[in-house]
This record gives sequence, structure tokens and C-alpha cells, in this order.
Amino acid sequence: MNVIDIINKTKKSYELTDTEIRWIVENYTNGGISDYQMSAWLMAVCINGLTERETFTLTMAMRDSGETLDFSRLGKITADKHSTGGVGDKTSLIIAPVVASCGVAMPKMSGRGLGHTGGTIDKLESISGYRTELPFYEFSETVRKTGFSIISQSGNLCPADKKIYSLRNATGTVDSIPLICASIMSKKLALNADCILLDVKCGSGAFMKTRSDAEKLAVLMEKVGKSAGKKCRAVVTDMDSPLGNNIGNALEVKEAIEILQGKYKGRLYDVCMELTADILELAEKGTLEECRRLAENAVSSGKALEVFRETVRLHGGDCRICDDVSLLPQPRYSYEVRAVHDMKILGINSEEIGMTSLILGAGRLKKDDTIDISAGIVMNCTAGDCISVDDTIMTLYSSTVSDFSEASFRAVNALKFCSI
Amino acid sequence: MNVIDIINKTKKSYELTDTEIRWIVENYTNGGISDYQMSAWLMAVCINGLTERETFTLTMAMRDSGETLDFSRLGKITADKHSTGGVGDKTSLIIAPVVASCGVAMPKMSGRGLGHTGGTIDKLESISGYRTELPFYEFSETVRKTGFSIISQSGNLCPADKKIYSLRNATGTVDSIPLICASIMSKKLALNADCILLDVKCGSGAFMKTRSDAEKLAVLMEKVGKSAGKKCRAVVTDMDSPLGNNIGNALEVKEAIEILQGKYKGRLYDVCMELTADILELAEKGTLEECRRLAENAVSSGKALEVFRETVRLHGGDCRICDDVSLLPQPRYSYEVRAVHDMKILGINSEEIGMTSLILGAGRLKKDDTIDISAGIVMNCTAGDCISVDDTIMTLYSSTVSDFSEASFRAVNALKFCSI
Repeated sequence: MNVIDIINKTKKSYELTDTEIRWIVENYTNGGISDYQMSAWLMAVCINGLTERETFTLTMAMRDSGETLDFSRLGKITADKHSTGGVGDKTSLIIAPVVASCGVAMPKMSGRGLGHTGGTIDKLESISGYRTELPFYEFSETVRKTGFSIISQSGNLCPADKKIYSLRNATGTVDSIPLICASIMSKKLALNADCILLDVKCGSGAFMKTRSDAEKLAVLMEKVGKSAGKKCRAVVTDMDSPLGNNIGNALEVKEAIEILQGKYKGRLYDVCMELTADILELAEKGTLEECRRLAENAVSSGKALEVFRETVRLHGGDCRICDDVSLLPQPRYSYEVRAVHDMKILGINSEEIGMTSLILGAGRLKKDDTIDISAGIVMNCTAGDCISVDDTIMTLYSSTVSDFSEASFRAVNALKFCSI
Repeated sequence: MNVIDIINKTKKSYELTDTEIRWIVENYTNGGISDYQMSAWLMAVCINGLTERETFTLTMAMRDSGETLDFSRLGKITADKHSTGGVGDKTSLIIAPVVASCGVAMPKMSGRGLGHTGGTIDKLESISGYRTELPFYEFSETVRKTGFSIISQSGNLCPADKKIYSLRNATGTVDSIPLICASIMSKKLALNADCILLDVKCGSGAFMKTRSDAEKLAVLMEKVGKSAGKKCRAVVTDMDSPLGNNIGNALEVKEAIEILQGKYKGRLYDVCMELTADILELAEKGTLEECRRLAENAVSSGKALEVFRETVRLHGGDCRICDDVSLLPQPRYSYEVRAVHDMKILGINSEEIGMTSLILGAGRLKKDDTIDISAGIVMNCTAGDCISVDDTIMTLYSSTVSDFSEASFRAVNALKFCSI
């Protein structure tokens, strides 16, 4: 087999055989194929696409490049959830303990934030002492004891995806639905939970800007998951405006705890309950309505918060935050963005809010940038709200940036409003 | 400026600005852009193409990556000729001395053979002592004295093309008309002759397999040449069957000398006279008919052979070959392929004949392979000929291969015939 023949086939939109796809993934992973050859193939895939069969085979080849986990010894049905990334998306922090409270185990691996989108691992690291890296035994034991655990991606899972993903980042080959599907699904299938819920974010703050692309990705991932023998469902959820009021790592943990405490019921709560119901239904815990009620009870009874507290404790984290969120890292500086006239908020551009949060120190432009765990934004309004002159629209927080001129300028830019 | 933005634009078929194209070429040449980024861009070009303006700018940027020659001190009009490569194509060896005899200077840089196609430099090296590398002063002096000189590509011309070309070879991004055009034309424009004749070969032995592709490339190269201020013409010539009877390095020099001696007048002679007339007309030596007569006179008078002899002498080569071709390297082994029944030759597949020649030792599979200068094929027939049983169809020669079973099998495969 010859890499140039394979590149030429995809370039000319001929379908590759399973053997050819497995060969290119294996040989790129072990160094037999160079970066410049792989990037040429990836660009051909970006432009010409792959068939569903090719995408499935690529996903399986990437999964098989490393180890596959096995949670069968837990003796429980396991579920996994993936969101394609967004702004203010702290749903995993809420859903995992709720799902666990309802008797479905959730061993989960998450990533870090990049650009305007956040990452669950960064958020968890704002909890003092929380260890995001655990050996498999401890990860599995935590899941056995509390029902869930969230750690960062392990080094032994999907090495092919790691190598391909960083090459895609450097070569303009990120925005390909088959490649995104293979990257996400190879990791999900390597983690190997019984049920997989895929939450494809759609809108200004999401990677998929259009409904049509989001639906294509959702359908493709669901098919790949089912073909691999999983109970799998993909849903498309809106990311045109940020999810919840808080954006930024410690601020999002605070909001997640407040949801688990039953303090707030709004769009974020609803999205979490719906996604949880989807997972529980996949795990055959009842009809969608029954599952939704199970989820709501887990929050209102305080059971989900207890599960969260115990997991934080087993991870070495300071679990007193579950009663007192002021123990989370506090920002040194703050700035209130106020209305200069009476106005109606028509919309909030998530991507711009995400970039504002990054400017405040909460995010990374490059993979190795350090972040300010306390920085971020608290929104005082959502689309549709009317604001009076001098009211606070949002508050900006940072421990590293004391001059808020750039961030506030960008924050105001994120608002779509009309004067009233 | 950012390489990923540029890659993304071409990927989405947006037109690049001149500044962006110059930037990507400059930065790839100086190492600021990595191979894997460049190969992603080249693949996007391969699939989505470039506009004429983009192709022109790419060509100029590649030309400007190194030095540009200046023959104005010769005080003569200069001409250059390029053929896109073929099997048995020794036209340069014939055309250059004929053109020079007619008062137009021809400083020429040529390449080596790869795969089934031959290269003029390999052919010239079959002349004992002939130096294919000369410093610019000596190259120019030779042209001043005899009217032509042929040397191998110098290291200072078009370094961008060298780097891009070897990357294309390794990444399946060779077959792109804009990239082929930029590669050829950047070298022609760096050599900087006043008139440029482009001979685009078309057919089984050529890089352009279809008439339509060959014409596209011809039109594009002519436009680029004219836009760069050159007198430029591109013609499409047939390469469905080999050009002339001899294939292989020393064998082709022998055939070229025999043409210059006026011994043969056939398809090869006609093609050479036509291409020469095109060049002389570009150089304003008269109408096409007048130029054709000038060319024929240069051969029949023996003047072209004298010019060839003198150039070989100035290059340090053994010029006695001009009177006695048996002084060229002689092959050790030979094998006659004979007709097993009466047959009519319908066609000869040039690519297969080129591969047969390669198997005999005359060509290279990889750039650094050594070649057998004496190896090759002498055809005893052309398409349309009738052959009687036991007549010799062709003779195979080699100094390195004594078992002709593979080569003769392949040679017979190259023939399309019917029994009569």
C-alpha cells in the first residue's frame, strides 16, 4: 500500500477501502507517514468529504490506535455525554451528578478550553485540591462509589486522534464534518460507555454556525455510535447566546452548584434536565417524561448535590464549596457594564462574550497559555430583557487584568439591542 | 498575515490577493511555513484550482525566489523551449543547434529523467566528457560563441520551485494545471529569454493524458508568459507513440546526430522543423513558411551539425561522435523482439515503452537512482506499419540487464496490433 495512491484516491473523490483507511491511520500514528503527507490527505477529506462508511472506519481505526476502557466490572449501565463546546456551557458539571443520582454511572473524560470556548477540566481545577488526573483504578473506583467521575483525557486513549487533531489545528483542516465526527466518536468509543448522548451546539458561540451543519454532524455521529453497537443519540441545542449567566471557570462552578442547590430554574436548568432525561431514557430508566421527573427529583431532593460533593471529596477537592460558593477563587478586580439609556436586549453574541472572557484571562489563545481561574463575566440579562438606564448589564471579573477598557468595549459589542 | 487564513481561503475557493500569494511562497522558501502547512495548501489548490491571476502571481513569486539571468550582453535575441516531457523526445538536442544556426541564441537549462520520461541532461551525459554544469560566465560565453548551450538547472534559480516540487512529489499534489504551469513558467522566466516556445506533450507517454488538459495547460502557460512580457507560444504535440525510433540516452543522442546529418526525414524531423519554425517566427525571422525553410536549410547545409559539434567541444565533450556515432557508449547486451506472425501495428503505447526502457536501465524510478547510459530501445516500426513473421519489431539494449524476459514482455504489451 502506498500513501500517495491513497491521497490521490481521496483527492479524486474515490472511496477508500477499510484496509486503506486503517493503514493510513496506523502508519501516521507510528510515524511511517509524514505530517506533510497526512495534511495533504486531511485537506482532500476537508474539501471532498468522506462517505459514512469511510467515516465509520476512520473512527474505529482511531479508536483502535490506543486502549479501550472497560467498565463492565461496575455492574451498572454506563453513560457518556459530549458537548461540541460552547460559551458558558457547564452542563456536564450538572448532568453527571444528576445522572449518577438516578442510578446510571457516568465515567467521563473532558478537555480544556481553547479560544472563546471553555473546557470542563479548567472549570474543575478552580476547585481547590481537585485532581483532574487519576489512574484508571481510582477513576473507576470513584465512579463505583459515587456514580460519576470527571478526569482529563488520558494519554493512552486515541493517540491517533491526538496527533491528527494537532495537525488539523495547524493546517486549516479543522472544519470537516467527517473529521470532527471521527475525532469525537473515537474518544467516546474508546471510553466505551453503554449509552452516548451527543449535544451538538449550534449558533454564534458554537463550532457549528448553521443549523444544517449541526444536524449533519449530529446525524453522522449518531449513526457511527449505533454502528459501533452503542445506544446513541445526538441532539442539536442552541448556542446563539451563552448558556446560563456565568462565563469563566470558578464562576461557572458556582453557577453549577447553585443549580444543584435548586436555587435557579431557567434556560440552563431546562437544558440540563432535558439532556439528563435523554441519557436516562437511553439507559432504559423509563419514558422521556418519567426520566425528566427522575432528573428533577434528583435536584430538588438534594441527592445530586450530595453526589457532586462526594465526588469532589474523592478527587481531593475542597467540598465545602457545595455549601459555601464564596470559598471558590475570588477575582481581585471587577467592572460593571451599565446601560447608557433604556434598552431592550435583542440578542447576545456568544462568541464575542467568549472572547471577552478570554481577554479577561479566563481563556487561552494557544494550547499552553495559562489561565486566570477567577476571571469571567456574570450576565444580568438575557435576550428579550428590558434594561433601564444605569442598570448593570453585566459584571466583568479578573485577577490579572485591572484595565477593563478593551474587555468592556468587546462586551458591549456582543450585545444586540434597541433603545426604548 | 497568517498561513491558516490563507489555507482556509483556498480551501473555500476564495481568491487570494497578490500579497498573500507572495507571502506564502516567500515564507515557505525561507522555512517560516512548514511542509505540512504547505502541502495542505497545495492540496486545496489541486482540488479547487487557482484563477489565472493567482497562477500568474504564484509564477512570478516563484521566479523571484531566486536569481534571474540576464543575456542582454549577448546583443542577440534569445529563445527558450520547454517540452513537458515524453518518451524518446530528443527534440531539444536537434532544435537548439538549428535555432542557433539561424541567428537566434538558445541558452537552455534542462532536467533529468524520472519514471518513464527521459531528460535532456541524462542524454547529454552519454557524450564522453560533456560537462552539464557550467558557471554562468562559461554558459553565457558558450552561447555567445556557438549560439547555444544546454546545462542542468542551476542551484540559484527558483529555489521555491525546487522545494515545492519535491513536496508535491511526496504528497499526491502533482497533477494540478496551475501548479504545473507555475513550476515550468517560473523557471522559464528566471532564465529570462526573449522568446519562449512551450511544447505540451499529449497522450499515453505524456503527463497530460487528454487533449483537453494539454490545451488548458498550453493556454495558461502562454498567457502567463505574455503577461510577464515575453514573446510566448504554446503548442500541443502528440505523444501517443514515442518520438523517433530510439529510446534511451546514448541511443537518442545517436538519433539526434543522424537527424542533424540529414540522414532521416520522418515524424521526428517534421516535429523539430515545426517547433524550430515556431521559435524563429517568435524571434521575428520571417513568416512561418520562411522560418521553416531557414530551419531545413540549417540541417541540409550541415550548419546545424557544425554548431552542435562546436558546442559539444566547448562543453568538454568528445565531438568526434558527430562524424562517428559508434563512439557513443555501446550496450553490452541486446535482444531482438520479433513478430510471431504477420501483423499490422495499430499503435505503440509510449508510457509502456518508457517503462520498458526504464527496466532496461535507461531510466530512474527514484531521483537518486543511477542509470545505464547505453540502455534503451530501437523501434523498427511505427503505427501503421505491416510486419512479417520473424521480422524484428524492436531491439532492446542494456549493459546492466542480460535477462530480457521482463523487458520483452513489457515491450510486447506496449504494442497494439492485429494479425494479418
